[in-house]
Amino acid sequence: MNFKNYIRNVSDFPEKGIVFKDITPLLQDSIALAAAKNALLQMLGDNTVDKVVGMESRGFFFAPMLAIDLNAGFVPVRKPGKLPFSKISETYSLEYGEDVLEMHSDAISKGDKVLIHDDVLATGGTASAVCKLVERLGGEIVQCNFLLELQFLNGAEKLAGYPIASLMKF
Amino acid sequence: MNFKNYIRNVSDFPEKGIVFKDITPLLQDSIALAAAKNALLQMLGDNTVDKVVGMESRGFFFAPMLAIDLNAGFVPVRKPGKLPFSKISETYSLEYGEDVLEMHSDAISKGDKVLIHDDVLATGGTASAVCKLVERLGGEIVQCNFLLELQFLNGAEKLAGYPIASLMKF
Repeated sequence: MNFKNYIRNVSDFPEKGIVFKDITPLLQDSIALAAAKNALLQMLGDNTVDKVVGMESRGFFFAPMLAIDLNAGFVPVRKPGKLPFSKISETYSLEYGEDVLEMHSDAISKGDKVLIHDDVLATGGTASAVCKLVERLGGEIVQCNFLLELQFLNGAEKLAGYPIASLMKF
Repeated sequence: MNFKNYIRNVSDFPEKGIVFKDITPLLQDSIALAAAKNALLQMLGDNTVDKVVGMESRGFFFAPMLAIDLNAGFVPVRKPGKLPFSKISETYSLEYGEDVLEMHSDAISKGDKVLIHDDVLATGGTASAVCKLVERLGGEIVQCNFLLELQFLNGAEKLAGYPIASLMKF
């Protein structure tokens, strides 16, 4: 299946000059949705996984279902103030300013094999912060995988040293 | 499985005096996570579904995987400014003030049978707004289902006329 046929370019979103890759046509097509899940699983090969970590909000679409198919648990990484229990946080840089991500302290056990999933790999800032959260809790990162990668933003460089895989590259 | 064993009470979150029902222990347990998906599917009985609609953000955990198991597409309902394409919106009341939810205009086709899913049924304000969005696009609501229902908030009354089902009731 050519998944790129299900990605819609939206000009000037979220701001002027940016062409946004809209994944909702893929999500709302039952065949493409199921095929995308299977393709994400295939990228993982024979690796076993204890936890799948997904990032708020669009990482939540696929991460929990990947967890079930891998007999793993699912761990959400969220923006500040959303998680209710004891947690750790990482600050990371944006083009202008910085942002924070949080994870529950009991979400990962020492030695857990972890798959990190998000919809898009852009600059890699978010994924890199999540790698740090996972490692601070003693997790071992098996792969960072993405529905799509915006190669011109060089996110792969920021994640050097971690296995990464993307279903679509633009 | 007694799913309530995987729900953690967190006092004074998000504000003083509220006991928050934290579903992350259920999500991070591989067996409880898979069992919850199956139980949500069982609540639907023999109904067929064309689209599963999930609400930002915690409705995203289960709605896409339910869609795949039902051979349906997944449609996200989001907070203002997050969806990039042509969309419709509904304003609904909160305890103090109001909020807005948005859905892409092409997300539902006339006559689509629709399952609406969210993690929690509280006052029913969110689910009621989503029902309106679906019906404005010509969809037929087969069920609104929830991981858990806070019965003392009477959300079921607000959704009177729609089939609703909850995996856990508190």
